[in-house]
Amino acid sequence: MEIKEFKEIFEKKAEEIFSELNLLEEIEKPFKYSFFAGGKRLRPWIIYNIGRYYNIEEEKLLRIGFAVEILHTASLIHDDLPAIDNSNYRRGKLTNHKQFSEWQAILTGDAGFVIPFKVFSNNFSIDESYKLTGFFSEIMLDLIQGEALDVAFERGMILPSQKSVEEMYRKKTSALFEFSFGVIPYLKDLKEEYQLMKKAGKNFGLAFQIYDDLKDKYGKFEEVGKDLNNDENKITLIALYSDEKAKNYAEFLFKEANDILLKLGLKDFSNEILKIKQLIERK
Amino acid sequence: MEIKEFKEIFEKKAEEIFSELNLLEEIEKPFKYSFFAGGKRLRPWIIYNIGRYYNIEEEKLLRIGFAVEILHTASLIHDDLPAIDNSNYRRGKLTNHKQFSEWQAILTGDAGFVIPFKVFSNNFSIDESYKLTGFFSEIMLDLIQGEALDVAFERGMILPSQKSVEEMYRKKTSALFEFSFGVIPYLKDLKEEYQLMKKAGKNFGLAFQIYDDLKDKYGKFEEVGKDLNNDENKITLIALYSDEKAKNYAEFLFKEANDILLKLGLKDFSNEILKIKQLIERK
Repeated sequence: MEIKEFKEIFEKKAEEIFSELNLLEEIEKPFKYSFFAGGKRLRPWIIYNIGRYYNIEEEKLLRIGFAVEILHTASLIHDDLPAIDNSNYRRGKLTNHKQFSEWQAILTGDAGFVIPFKVFSNNFSIDESYKLTGFFSEIMLDLIQGEALDVAFERGMILPSQKSVEEMYRKKTSALFEFSFGVIPYLKDLKEEYQLMKKAGKNFGLAFQIYDDLKDKYGKFEEVGKDLNNDENKITLIALYSDEKAKNYAEFLFKEANDILLKLGLKDFSNEILKIKQLIERK
Repeated sequence: MEIKEFKEIFEKKAEEIFSELNLLEEIEKPFKYSFFAGGKRLRPWIIYNIGRYYNIEEEKLLRIGFAVEILHTASLIHDDLPAIDNSNYRRGKLTNHKQFSEWQAILTGDAGFVIPFKVFSNNFSIDESYKLTGFFSEIMLDLIQGEALDVAFERGMILPSQKSVEEMYRKKTSALFEFSFGVIPYLKDLKEEYQLMKKAGKNFGLAFQIYDDLKDKYGKFEEVGKDLNNDENKITLIALYSDEKAKNYAEFLFKEANDILLKLGLKDFSNEILKIKQLIERK
């Protein structure tokens, strides 16, 4: 399914799940502000496409996607805080703590770290819920610790080696893609496919991050929608390699991810992913 | 078991679980600083006592207690942040963001919201893990939203009625005690005992909060170990009622909780709880 068409279906379902959750207004309002701020829904879309290929019900796929997007949103809300990235804009809108207040941004993010587990335990079988909780809590800790490594590098608390920067990116960005690519074969106990898909997710995530870094470096605010050059002190892969080398590396990673999709027979999804790549590069 | 004896056993096991978790140093160090800052271990001790009465293995009880204490610690780290309570001291030591830095306190707290789910999925049967995840994610959302209500009252965003203040306390303080009292019968599918124990936890939590508010109002720093009169603008139950009335209410709630323990046959634990009450009051 094309990503634009998916986005509409997904956001309708997300509205429905939000009302089921029955959150306190002081949390729900800021959460929805950031959740519906115009994200591409890349991760839920990946889960959906792979899941449909493996004949998983749409309802379940949208709920797993919701959980992932909730975590993604919560981690961005915390990353933007004054004590971390101190960002004023994201996706062309004021960041959560700027639009609301810092305490609301902190507690809203906190709620976002719990909601996925509530969704898993309310809407899935015992066995599925167990698997989702295990896999998700693993990548969630990676995500948070990847962010911690990132800040520790930036503040000069740790001297970054090439290897440790890759490790940071794997945790901070790739982990959520590893989950998005790997979760369906994981749920279906397809061990070999799971390993391959996890690898595809890891590579896709790294490539995606490199494109994102290049965009931040050369983009204009109107195109990127967030504070630029905020990354000046950040240790990025493009700061370690040359731009040229980083771009080649991203191409290599992307191709490897795409080859895995083709090998497993997901030809249609591979075509869609190629379109996404062009979309990201164009921006 | 007496709480002092328990504390030693618990902290030894906690050290062991921390090393299993293999956290990043930038997260582990601040987490352990706050985790081992001299808490009474009241909640894990409650779980342990009830669990032993129902013949649950010690190992499992300590791990559930660890999860609860991790969440409790994480929520205190976030509550102390400048944007929320802006506290400099807790338990006689610098708060986490003062000892380390704000970004570390934010991300350390975040990690604490995930670790419990990791413990549940790594160390319990599928069925137990499913139940723990469901119950825990429920009370965790209560806890975070109770805190949000508390701050919203304080900043004048919501006009607090007596009912809404009680609801805030139920979420902010009692929820974790509802879990601690109720989790064992919940795991054993003892529905009636579960309902009773949850009620005991709710009452105990409310009573505990009232004693704590009185302590904050009349205590000295050496006794309390945290910033006093920080609660000046807070809407507390003792601000709504008179001190006298609040204290009587706490006595009533406490007795009701204790009666439930006696009714279910936990005579030894009831005796220990009475000692704890004296300990809290004396402080």
